[in-house]
Amino acid sequence: MRADTTWVELPNSRYPILFETGSLSNRASAPNPLKEFVGESVLIVSNQTIADRYAAPLVDMLSGLKVDLHLIPEGEVHKTLGELERIIETLLRAGHTRETSLIALGGGVVGDMTGFAAAIYQRGVPFIQIPTTLLAQVDSSVGGKTAVNHLLGKNMIGAFHQPEAVLIDVGVLRSLPVKEFAAGMAEVVKHALLADADYLTWLEAHIDAIKALDSTVLTEMVRKSCEIKSRIVAADEKEKGQRALLNLGHTFGHAIETLVGYGEILHGEAVAIGTVMAATLSSRHGLIHADEVTRIESLLQAFNLPTRVQQPISVDAFLTAMGRDKKATAHGLRFILLKALGEAVVVSEFDEQHLNAVLSESLSG
Amino acid sequence: MRADTTWVELPNSRYPILFETGSLSNRASAPNPLKEFVGESVLIVSNQTIADRYAAPLVDMLSGLKVDLHLIPEGEVHKTLGELERIIETLLRAGHTRETSLIALGGGVVGDMTGFAAAIYQRGVPFIQIPTTLLAQVDSSVGGKTAVNHLLGKNMIGAFHQPEAVLIDVGVLRSLPVKEFAAGMAEVVKHALLADADYLTWLEAHIDAIKALDSTVLTEMVRKSCEIKSRIVAADEKEKGQRALLNLGHTFGHAIETLVGYGEILHGEAVAIGTVMAATLSSRHGLIHADEVTRIESLLQAFNLPTRVQQPISVDAFLTAMGRDKKATAHGLRFILLKALGEAVVVSEFDEQHLNAVLSESLSG
Repeated sequence: MRADTTWVELPNSRYPILFETGSLSNRASAPNPLKEFVGESVLIVSNQTIADRYAAPLVDMLSGLKVDLHLIPEGEVHKTLGELERIIETLLRAGHTRETSLIALGGGVVGDMTGFAAAIYQRGVPFIQIPTTLLAQVDSSVGGKTAVNHLLGKNMIGAFHQPEAVLIDVGVLRSLPVKEFAAGMAEVVKHALLADADYLTWLEAHIDAIKALDSTVLTEMVRKSCEIKSRIVAADEKEKGQRALLNLGHTFGHAIETLVGYGEILHGEAVAIGTVMAATLSSRHGLIHADEVTRIESLLQAFNLPTRVQQPISVDAFLTAMGRDKKATAHGLRFILLKALGEAVVVSEFDEQHLNAVLSESLSG
Repeated sequence: MRADTTWVELPNSRYPILFETGSLSNRASAPNPLKEFVGESVLIVSNQTIADRYAAPLVDMLSGLKVDLHLIPEGEVHKTLGELERIIETLLRAGHTRETSLIALGGGVVGDMTGFAAAIYQRGVPFIQIPTTLLAQVDSSVGGKTAVNHLLGKNMIGAFHQPEAVLIDVGVLRSLPVKEFAAGMAEVVKHALLADADYLTWLEAHIDAIKALDSTVLTEMVRKSCEIKSRIVAADEKEKGQRALLNLGHTFGHAIETLVGYGEILHGEAVAIGTVMAATLSSRHGLIHADEVTRIESLLQAFNLPTRVQQPISVDAFLTAMGRDKKATAHGLRFILLKALGEAVVVSEFDEQHLNAVLSESLSG
């Protein structure tokens, strides 16, 4: 059992990320690390697969409280207002008051929906994140972004709602499918690229330990990623400026997800391809060297990530899909480019020819 | 044309209430008072009746901007997540980005839904309130509470989201049905009762002018009410403590609405009855004198408000309905009682016998 805490400091609040390896994965009996963060009743929101594995140890951890469980169907396609209303209905039917807490036990879909349900149930109740995928541990656990999808666009309906605490047990990653672990690594590589060249070198040096799921190395990695994200979010909680840097690879990535279809490609896989596209665009603008693009591509490939689309995508369809991305401003597209490995920048003026060249090249499959 | 401004000061923000008599009701051509508060595109949300009267002058006022209009069906029963999703769909189909603004043109239902849509569209965009009912002018325009109903309870899904500005034209009250004007007066009397004995006396002295819809008197009244609400909200933006005082008459009122049925009784009418019930309970606890209850009842009646239920309601059903009120805490019911005319207090310990006596008496029809 390893206990350790990183604090996310925001302008008007702060919350801890509790690293407790074994707390769920080994059913380690220990003092409830969530004790001070929950009220007298709790609704755990999860999906069947995760609940089968970890609901029991979590319920044990919360013994003494009124605990209810709500399962949502798996997959991004179910991240809808309709499913959200079912969570609200469970809360109302089971008589949860404003003093209740929600706990998100699962990956990004569970976290986004639980956080949003907590944001709007009776105009806001507290919630706790227990991310069970690597992507959720390094990405969704910091930032307070919650949302559901609309048929016309991803994450179009949501709120900023910070958790009371995040509990991370890297031991749960042992039961994560290899493909999903890889998808999480796309965000980890992104963090290094946009903010910390040393971290990039560290990742390159620890490829084997990371892939072998060494607990100590994974905890260090998740913590480094959370710290980077946390610094950026603290400077820009409501995503007005600097936080846009976190969207490195995402303008392209979201368009890929939209066109390939949610469920056909993992978010992290789309981000990996989008990151290479952003790096290539950066290189075409003379910001980074072509060798550095190759270095990024190699690292992503080392973590079993795709770096190109599998099937060709039409450039026109892609441009349309990007136009609907919510990070687009009314004035046109903007991109996050790399000035160097470890330093990203928001660019709203760019060379259309370079963009078209990158799209033709990268979308040919 | 009369221009005047009251500022609502909150811990982290402030916004103006602009009193501009004639701006909509006389189609008075004047500089756009909303100019500095809107971006480059606007979605006006309203209903058919209000839009027929005031959409044209509002669109004139906003000339030069991209302006879209979304109509919602009239009535509290349509304040649902489903109707909310339609507003979101209009925003997406018309290509509104994060730089858009929403304008609520209508009464409480329009204000609640538009504010909530603004709170969650792309995780939050600005909105402006143009309340066209007295209730909305004195109540919804200050406070930032937005919500939709769930079949299992009123306002169970929502957010705190403050407007950028509120535009009030008391001239629009001339086209308001008499019954709805009266409903608004219930909140006005409530404001006087809970915070300002002088205001109560002022109201008693201006009954005729108020009922004659004298613009100067109405503007003064709306401003006084907004100032009282604004002071209370400023001290307690997220409704953790003092703000509960604004619920005077509402724990009873909501139960009446639930049991009589939304649409069968106006919110303000239920609040008027609930206020008399709260006053009677205060008197039974020896806090105020029975004569003062009569004084309250007379004032409400002078404004054509009901002070008793029309049909008998069962005490048991009423208690159950109150238990589901979201202002109830897990520990039991709490009431807002009057310590004096002009001073309210939150009470969670009270005499069950007194409560039962008040319920039996007041709910007998």
